[in-house]
Amino acid sequence: MKVLVINAGSSSLKYQLLDPSTEEVLAQGLCERIGIDGRLTHKIPATGAKHVFEIAMPTHAEAIQAVLDALTSAEHGVIKSMSEIEAVGHRVVHGGEKFASSVKIDEAVMAALEECIPLAPLHNPANITGIKACEKVMPGVPMVAVFDTAFHQTMPAKSYIYALPYEYYENDKVRRYGFHGTSHKYVAGRAAAMLGKKPEELKLISCHLGNGSSITAIDGGKSVDTTMGFTPLAGVPMGTRSGDLDAGILEYLMNKYNMDIKEMLTVLNKKSGVQGISGVSSDFRDLEEAAAQGNQRAALALEAFQYSVRKFVGAYAAAMGGVDAIIFTAGVGENDAATRMAIASGLEFMGVKMDAEANNVRGKEAVISAADSKVKVLLIPTNEELMIARDTAEIVGK
Amino acid sequence: MKVLVINAGSSSLKYQLLDPSTEEVLAQGLCERIGIDGRLTHKIPATGAKHVFEIAMPTHAEAIQAVLDALTSAEHGVIKSMSEIEAVGHRVVHGGEKFASSVKIDEAVMAALEECIPLAPLHNPANITGIKACEKVMPGVPMVAVFDTAFHQTMPAKSYIYALPYEYYENDKVRRYGFHGTSHKYVAGRAAAMLGKKPEELKLISCHLGNGSSITAIDGGKSVDTTMGFTPLAGVPMGTRSGDLDAGILEYLMNKYNMDIKEMLTVLNKKSGVQGISGVSSDFRDLEEAAAQGNQRAALALEAFQYSVRKFVGAYAAAMGGVDAIIFTAGVGENDAATRMAIASGLEFMGVKMDAEANNVRGKEAVISAADSKVKVLLIPTNEELMIARDTAEIVGK
Repeated sequence: MKVLVINAGSSSLKYQLLDPSTEEVLAQGLCERIGIDGRLTHKIPATGAKHVFEIAMPTHAEAIQAVLDALTSAEHGVIKSMSEIEAVGHRVVHGGEKFASSVKIDEAVMAALEECIPLAPLHNPANITGIKACEKVMPGVPMVAVFDTAFHQTMPAKSYIYALPYEYYENDKVRRYGFHGTSHKYVAGRAAAMLGKKPEELKLISCHLGNGSSITAIDGGKSVDTTMGFTPLAGVPMGTRSGDLDAGILEYLMNKYNMDIKEMLTVLNKKSGVQGISGVSSDFRDLEEAAAQGNQRAALALEAFQYSVRKFVGAYAAAMGGVDAIIFTAGVGENDAATRMAIASGLEFMGVKMDAEANNVRGKEAVISAADSKVKVLLIPTNEELMIARDTAEIVGK
Repeated sequence: MKVLVINAGSSSLKYQLLDPSTEEVLAQGLCERIGIDGRLTHKIPATGAKHVFEIAMPTHAEAIQAVLDALTSAEHGVIKSMSEIEAVGHRVVHGGEKFASSVKIDEAVMAALEECIPLAPLHNPANITGIKACEKVMPGVPMVAVFDTAFHQTMPAKSYIYALPYEYYENDKVRRYGFHGTSHKYVAGRAAAMLGKKPEELKLISCHLGNGSSITAIDGGKSVDTTMGFTPLAGVPMGTRSGDLDAGILEYLMNKYNMDIKEMLTVLNKKSGVQGISGVSSDFRDLEEAAAQGNQRAALALEAFQYSVRKFVGAYAAAMGGVDAIIFTAGVGENDAATRMAIASGLEFMGVKMDAEANNVRGKEAVISAADSKVKVLLIPTNEELMIARDTAEIVGK
């Protein structure tokens, strides 16, 4: 079964055509500059081929059409006709409290997605536009929405409630939602497989560390707490995002610099995080290079990030009453051995013992704790597209 | 040596006359409604006597004069003349980065306190007013400032830096300061005495849980991290304060309800915390009563508070690479056995084992963990006034 996975942004669209049963990726790529001019980058993993096309994309519909043309092209295509695509899986950022799992898209679902726009005003409209474009270009092909928030809907109230007037939850839906759910769910499943256990038997802490980062406590296969909150700004410091804050800081800075809340949030989202501390870069490779050359603010940015992640690992072990395995995934988690080691060091008191040699690995599944470590530490590359394709195939197959 | 301890608020003034060497409290009381009309409540612990006087207090100077009159009164006084007061210790909320310990007050110190006003615009002006009133009424008596922030000045940069543009730290002093330092320092000292160890040998987590709450990690006698931040709004949910937040919530609510940042902060400081979740009360006794009668929001408020504290205990154990003892202090920590039990339950994985019977105690020093608990759990009533008097006596004695 071939599934097209779509991740639509406001002026971009990522895609992957894959077979969830064999896990083979037939083609993948990216449409950029939608609504401006338009460029398609199309790759065939099997051959390593990469094609770049300048194609007019006034709307997402033309972008989807360009993707379909590339996929079915005689020269650089991978399928003979569009009819080989049996289903489309759409990544949707925010499902609010309405969606605790992936869902087949129909009119009622589209209406619910529209209702979630206030919760994700930057992301959900682009996701909806992507779905509508697909409906136009691929009428009749079944489509599934897979939400970043859905996996976290199992959190208990003590984890998702904010200590705010309760009306903000009841009337305005202000609560912790959490994001990266597709990634956390995927690596939790892989961890169980690697450990030869059922997900129900395991307490896991999943560290999705990339340009955006979140940590999730997963007890018995279910998310019970996560660091991102009402928005993806919360939790640990990220590339350019601040993470959790003392709201008193906002008042102080907004008064001092005569900023409104929109300007303040732009600073917190775009100019903070490790970029803000270091003044060097939001990219961890740049920070490590700068730190190695003696840049103290770059070193401090790395240290503050690692320290924050380590504290959440301890917090979530306390939340679950222990932990069986800690998982590292996403760009930094998969590729940065020094950061993994710094985070997991000092956790011997709770049964974590790293193996420096085993940890010297990148981008592939591995146990990186010592053989006698009571708590296993795992490196698991994430695969959100595969997770979306699997959910899509399962739901469409129903 | 008799020391007068003063804690001046904007329209109130608490005092205690005590001898730090014998720890005897000769008298204590409260001036209220300063600048409005004026009332003095004066207590003599030795006899249990309590006197209430309506006295005009147009300024803090008249309040101090009323306190001195009461202390030296023939009827209900405890000293013969003001000259028996050898020194005055003032609680000062914010010492910024200038003060890492208590200090004898002189002109340079007063100037530095003025400079710290922007960091604590509600508290420091009142503290300064109290000092000036004492200087006026008790000229020549040596005075010492004891800061809520000073104990936390040992925090490493990774703990105090926010993931914000670094200029906000360098130019605007935005960093984690932490509060309740006098309390955390006092109970850490008592914990070492109770355990028969030197402070340098111990990793402690001090839970100061009251209407305002903060948790502090104390490694080798030094604060290395604490939950309150740039302001006392941060960390765990409190009576009416929200604790740490996702700043995205502020943007969402301010836009939705057309609030400015001042109005938003009033909600976060005065209408949030367990009061906000429960809608019942900011007082834990009220919440427990309501929860026992089936009020689910009161139960949720308690659970969310306990869960947040437990997570910070885990986080700080991870931060220090282990913990030798966990301390409970302040109103809730000293008196609420159920809350202590709820917080410390589920921490067996890190060597914490409570003793339900030993925990059934209020307001006195006690080991409340099981005899075979690797991590000791201690109940230690705090005594900020004694700590202030001790620092004052020590500095004046120099």
